[in-house]
Amino acid sequence: MKKVIGLDIGGTSSKFGIVENGVILRRGNLPTCLNDDPQDFIERLKIALGDLSGVEAMGVGAPNGNPLRGTIELAPNLKWKGIVPMANLLQEAMGIPVTLTNDANAAALGELKYGSARGMKNFISVTLGTGLGSGYVVDGKLMTGHSGFAGELGQVTAIPEGRLCGCGRRGCLETYVSATGIVKTFQELGGELTTSKEVAEAAGRGDTKAIQAFDETAKIFAVTLANTVAITSPEAIFLFGGLAQAKELLINPLEKYFALNLHNIFRGTVRILPSGLPENDAAILGASSLEG
Amino acid sequence: MKKVIGLDIGGTSSKFGIVENGVILRRGNLPTCLNDDPQDFIERLKIALGDLSGVEAMGVGAPNGNPLRGTIELAPNLKWKGIVPMANLLQEAMGIPVTLTNDANAAALGELKYGSARGMKNFISVTLGTGLGSGYVVDGKLMTGHSGFAGELGQVTAIPEGRLCGCGRRGCLETYVSATGIVKTFQELGGELTTSKEVAEAAGRGDTKAIQAFDETAKIFAVTLANTVAITSPEAIFLFGGLAQAKELLINPLEKYFALNLHNIFRGTVRILPSGLPENDAAILGASSLEG
Repeated sequence: MKKVIGLDIGGTSSKFGIVENGVILRRGNLPTCLNDDPQDFIERLKIALGDLSGVEAMGVGAPNGNPLRGTIELAPNLKWKGIVPMANLLQEAMGIPVTLTNDANAAALGELKYGSARGMKNFISVTLGTGLGSGYVVDGKLMTGHSGFAGELGQVTAIPEGRLCGCGRRGCLETYVSATGIVKTFQELGGELTTSKEVAEAAGRGDTKAIQAFDETAKIFAVTLANTVAITSPEAIFLFGGLAQAKELLINPLEKYFALNLHNIFRGTVRILPSGLPENDAAILGASSLEG
Repeated sequence: MKKVIGLDIGGTSSKFGIVENGVILRRGNLPTCLNDDPQDFIERLKIALGDLSGVEAMGVGAPNGNPLRGTIELAPNLKWKGIVPMANLLQEAMGIPVTLTNDANAAALGELKYGSARGMKNFISVTLGTGLGSGYVVDGKLMTGHSGFAGELGQVTAIPEGRLCGCGRRGCLETYVSATGIVKTFQELGGELTTSKEVAEAAGRGDTKAIQAFDETAKIFAVTLANTVAITSPEAIFLFGGLAQAKELLINPLEKYFALNLHNIFRGTVRILPSGLPENDAAILGASSLEG
């Protein structure tokens, strides 16, 4: 069994675990950017990791991670600017091989290795959080594309001329289908809550605006998912993250609209499924599976 | 050098060629469906093919061709109904190995083997004809997906609640971006011509409605192409078919809108290019490249 580090670099904090055969032996976390110097993060990480005897390699999931180059490129939610050669920096600091990809790709690989996609050749993993991330496995391998950035489902235009996105364009899927997006939809319907958890609770109490916000989110998501099926024809679409647990509010209407939007020839070939990874371990297992 | 048959099954007529090392030694054609019996087509094909000495295999491109099963499934433009096991039927009749895929996939493989995609690992080939077909090469291989039907870009919803499509759904890309679609757009603008050639000629004479029809087609196409880049990140998008030759009317505005819609991280990573296959030979070469 290979003992590896799984590191998940997040916008605010980063999590790591020492993983052997899918079991997290030891874990920890640290703030990501205390300043704009990635080297500062690496120094703090080394201290936090502690004794690494027997550890052979490291897998890293990071926002805007480029698997072809091992870089973190223009990540809008990190203080590190420009293109950070994180895999190389970590490799030099740790003296072990380091593989890096984006966080959503890591989640997809985690699903493939330890989750509900074991044995599948073609599937999509979608992470619903503050934004929307996705990773595509095609013919058994992570699809990276020519640039390394394939699988940016959150940046697909869902509503032409729609909401302004952090990327500078309008109508991107993640401005609607995400924790942030659902709150915005609720507010546009006249609601006054400020977190997706509150909107979900209100919907649970029968608040019609909150229920409608979930329904409209499901409708927009369904069209984009049916479109991505027409292109990549996966066997399953795994949903991960807090919102994915809103079975009655979000997943049931999503399945209804998805069936309505799916092209005939794909009927019966694709399912929407919950992730099989435990929420607390997913990011670490996903990152570790790059190397483990 | 392997000598193979390339067969392109079309809605009305089918073309074949005996191909060796990318050269069509001999070619012919025949009507596709004189009745609803695929065996009738195969008998006529055998006669048309004539002497097959030295021929080792056959590659077939067909509408709704499923590369995983070698079948033609529910093709709306053919009289053959249901699921036709065409590869098996041909193999029995000819006594040589037969590989079948859909026509747009065959075009993509032709581009990879004999066209402008030689050496590329990730690209898309889009055929603009009566409808819109596409084939995706991912990591050097044709993407078939779980169902075999991956790469149905023409069936992506471009305009929610838009035009009725032959597939029974609304707003599919090919109802706008195709020879048929551009005529419809021109007519909706108040024009009275009935073929895309006529609309192109009118635009060439400065007809503002015709120019606008091309411009709107380019705008819709650009959004969907930018979306498919966000998912698959190709190095190039090859355009094939009559409309693809409308450089000033269609391709120039397409490139402008595509640049406007492309997410930042893909800038400079992807080009829109004309197919490098000769129009008359493309379908045969594409089909033959399944086996050649």
